[in-house]
Amino acid sequence: MEVASAPSTKPWTRKHLVGLRGVSAEELQTIFRRAAEYKERARNGEPKSSELAGVVVANLFFENSTRTRTSFSLAARRLSADVVDFSASGSSLSKGETFIDTALTIQAMGADQMVVRHSSSGAPQFLTRHLNCSVLNAGDGTHEHPTQGLLDVFTIQERRGSLQGATVALVGDILHSRVARSNIWALKTLGARVIVCGPATLIPPHVTELGVEVSHSLDAILGEVDCLNLLRVQFERQRGAFFPSIAEYAHLYGMNGSRLLSARRDVLILAPGPINRGVEITPDVADGSHSMILDQVSNGLYIRMACLALLQEARRGSV
Amino acid sequence: MEVASAPSTKPWTRKHLVGLRGVSAEELQTIFRRAAEYKERARNGEPKSSELAGVVVANLFFENSTRTRTSFSLAARRLSADVVDFSASGSSLSKGETFIDTALTIQAMGADQMVVRHSSSGAPQFLTRHLNCSVLNAGDGTHEHPTQGLLDVFTIQERRGSLQGATVALVGDILHSRVARSNIWALKTLGARVIVCGPATLIPPHVTELGVEVSHSLDAILGEVDCLNLLRVQFERQRGAFFPSIAEYAHLYGMNGSRLLSARRDVLILAPGPINRGVEITPDVADGSHSMILDQVSNGLYIRMACLALLQEARRGSV
Amino acid sequence: MEVASAPSTKPWTRKHLVGLRGVSAEELQTIFRRAAEYKERARNGEPKSSELAGVVVANLFFENSTRTRTSFSLAARRLSADVVDFSASGSSLSKGETFIDTALTIQAMGADQMVVRHSSSGAPQFLTRHLNCSVLNAGDGTHEHPTQGLLDVFTIQERRGSLQGATVALVGDILHSRVARSNIWALKTLGARVIVCGPATLIPPHVTELGVEVSHSLDAILGEVDCLNLLRVQFERQRGAFFPSIAEYAHLYGMNGSRLLSARRDVLILAPGPINRGVEITPDVADGSHSMILDQVSNGLYIRMACLALLQEARRGSV
Repeated sequence: MEVASAPSTKPWTRKHLVGLRGVSAEELQTIFRRAAEYKERARNGEPKSSELAGVVVANLFFENSTRTRTSFSLAARRLSADVVDFSASGSSLSKGETFIDTALTIQAMGADQMVVRHSSSGAPQFLTRHLNCSVLNAGDGTHEHPTQGLLDVFTIQERRGSLQGATVALVGDILHSRVARSNIWALKTLGARVIVCGPATLIPPHVTELGVEVSHSLDAILGEVDCLNLLRVQFERQRGAFFPSIAEYAHLYGMNGSRLLSARRDVLILAPGPINRGVEITPDVADGSHSMILDQVSNGLYIRMACLALLQEARRGSV
Repeated sequence: MEVASAPSTKPWTRKHLVGLRGVSAEELQTIFRRAAEYKERARNGEPKSSELAGVVVANLFFENSTRTRTSFSLAARRLSADVVDFSASGSSLSKGETFIDTALTIQAMGADQMVVRHSSSGAPQFLTRHLNCSVLNAGDGTHEHPTQGLLDVFTIQERRGSLQGATVALVGDILHSRVARSNIWALKTLGARVIVCGPATLIPPHVTELGVEVSHSLDAILGEVDCLNLLRVQFERQRGAFFPSIAEYAHLYGMNGSRLLSARRDVLILAPGPINRGVEITPDVADGSHSMILDQVSNGLYIRMACLALLQEARRGSV
Repeated sequence: MEVASAPSTKPWTRKHLVGLRGVSAEELQTIFRRAAEYKERARNGEPKSSELAGVVVANLFFENSTRTRTSFSLAARRLSADVVDFSASGSSLSKGETFIDTALTIQAMGADQMVVRHSSSGAPQFLTRHLNCSVLNAGDGTHEHPTQGLLDVFTIQERRGSLQGATVALVGDILHSRVARSNIWALKTLGARVIVCGPATLIPPHVTELGVEVSHSLDAILGEVDCLNLLRVQFERQRGAFFPSIAEYAHLYGMNGSRLLSARRDVLILAPGPINRGVEITPDVADGSHSMILDQVSNGLYIRMACLALLQEARRGSV
């Protein structure tokens, strides 16, 4: 991997990571450099380090997500941290405890870092005002999912060398997608051109204020994009009826073999997963040579290691 | 922390901890000294030790309790033990296995210590007669919850230097409370005066035989107590109707700002948690300077480390 | 333990363990020797080794089994591997992801070995064709449960020195039992005579093609067998009515004190557990001197350590 910007001279100072809005290009590259280092070390047969030995990382998941939770757990353990899991079901919350009391209790048990997923936008930000431990947002409502945004953008940069001048399309449900928001902030900060593409019902009204372009036709933009990020149709999150049918969605916005023929020859295809085969992506594309899906998963581990390690360094530095 | 009694010369010999009844003042102080040592080490940046490396601690929770289970898990891992979790749901019990067969199986898998929570009073005691591994009661029915009692009393002693001559009131549902029972044994052993205070329906008939005083009015005793331990109203445990309404309970037995004005200036306020804000305690008191709630949680970790380490030493000594 | 065959000179080359069919006597003895070594080391106070440090073992359990999952987890941790657990409930599967996408995702997160339990026969075999990581079958449908077969046979060999010439009866539900199938393969390979015994409704039609004898009367064979393996009546797995009543099953095929009087004096009694006391075995027999039930559980840990370690060595060797 070639890194776009020169090595940073400023030390990392962020103690929390609640979103990618306001995270500078320099900070993004610091995270990416660190992730690339961990990846390189693993490739050389040194998957573990003792950087976070004695550190307790608590996963506080009020929304279920085995995938993200496991990625964070493995990342923490590769750095030799101790990991504890809390979920909404079976926690004290069901005994009437408030959200903040639960978090304060976990902190009092010795947690140094708290990885939080919550259905309410802003929940992790709220915790940063009440906790001394570091807060890492693992997805809050429709707000942000910063490590997903980081791993998506890192995966593109790793392939292309730079985001500068790249055209990236986010396809699908932009309205409900915290993944889209985190991607937009990081992509714009690193100089990419961003198109959001989906049915009008799933595009937020004032989204162009974020500096992105809007399209309602995947076919119309296919020839211009270097990278497609196919957002999940989140059947479990949609309460209204935002498009007529799954078949129609797949017909208009699903990536398939024939659309691939109209795309650029080196187009990169990302999907945050878990993917719905036959909906946002067909099996031949998901398993094909353009697909970055499993690279994203692998890079997720290194991105999360980088975030955990950097936040801990900021904590140590600020003591 | 100043320790009340002189250092013990007798080595620790208990292999099990099923309750605080019969635990001597010397034993209690041995646990407290050890907990204080672990706390001091953590404060000096050495949270982990390798004392229990190679030891397997099994959490066998037939009643759900993320909070207590996590505290035990973290305690065990700080001592470098391996921890395995068993819960009633999803265990072999649902396949018709008996309680003792489940425990024997876990022991055969290599468990050295078993942390047991069960809805039946006496379940941990029963296990001590069938297992070679150490048994640590994490709450059994309405009998005892010794580590909660230990952490409560340790928290008071840490602040006051000694329990000798202190007046401690346990407020609320004494009838169903294993926490109250464990507190009473330890407090009486260490020379405290104990008042149990609650509605007549929630005070066990012959409780004065334990050497405690009974009051039905929190206001009447407020001026005399050095420490208030506000038991949880356990909505999930009460099957009958023991008091007319939550509002009435809060009115008569809830600790609030105006009651605090009638209390001693240095009164300590404990609550085992998870707390019901607005029921047994108002937010201003829970978050105020008299509140020991988060100290209790932190001390819980060190108390459990001390118990795990001491029981293991007894096991090694008896081999 | 005396080992039957001479030490192997061929190195272990299997990367996966999906069943005991086709596993040679030499391979079985290699596993047993390794298990015996780990057992010996534990007895000498060295329960842990660093053989799998940095290795990630993923438990992918689509059927619930605390017992087997915990045994694998402890085995992996004794070798210093990192363990992650996935279960069907709460996994991405409930978000519409396919089985193979879930497995590929876990592999992309860094899993080196995948321990798989699935209700479909052949699921682990299927994974071996799509994954680079090692696949260890922890029970698939009615096909095989190789580590259970290994631990059963190891337990017998440990006692007898050899399986050669031994008569082993598998009693109960042969039709639905993956445990029976794995036992049959290993027992036949090691030279034992195998009798399957149960009601005609629970014996597979062409089972004699596997080289076993069939009996419908436990009493008729009792005097000839060196070892009885009492399969669980799997109330949770039987959908049809294969025998009239539990009482009748216990009467005809349950092992009890009076039957023990008709058995050989040194008969070994195994049961894979969790046992149904009073159904396939009475408490006096389960807790008696012939019972190998807890030895099986203990040996399971060492057998699984051996399998994890050997598969990892094959992975390293093939790189």
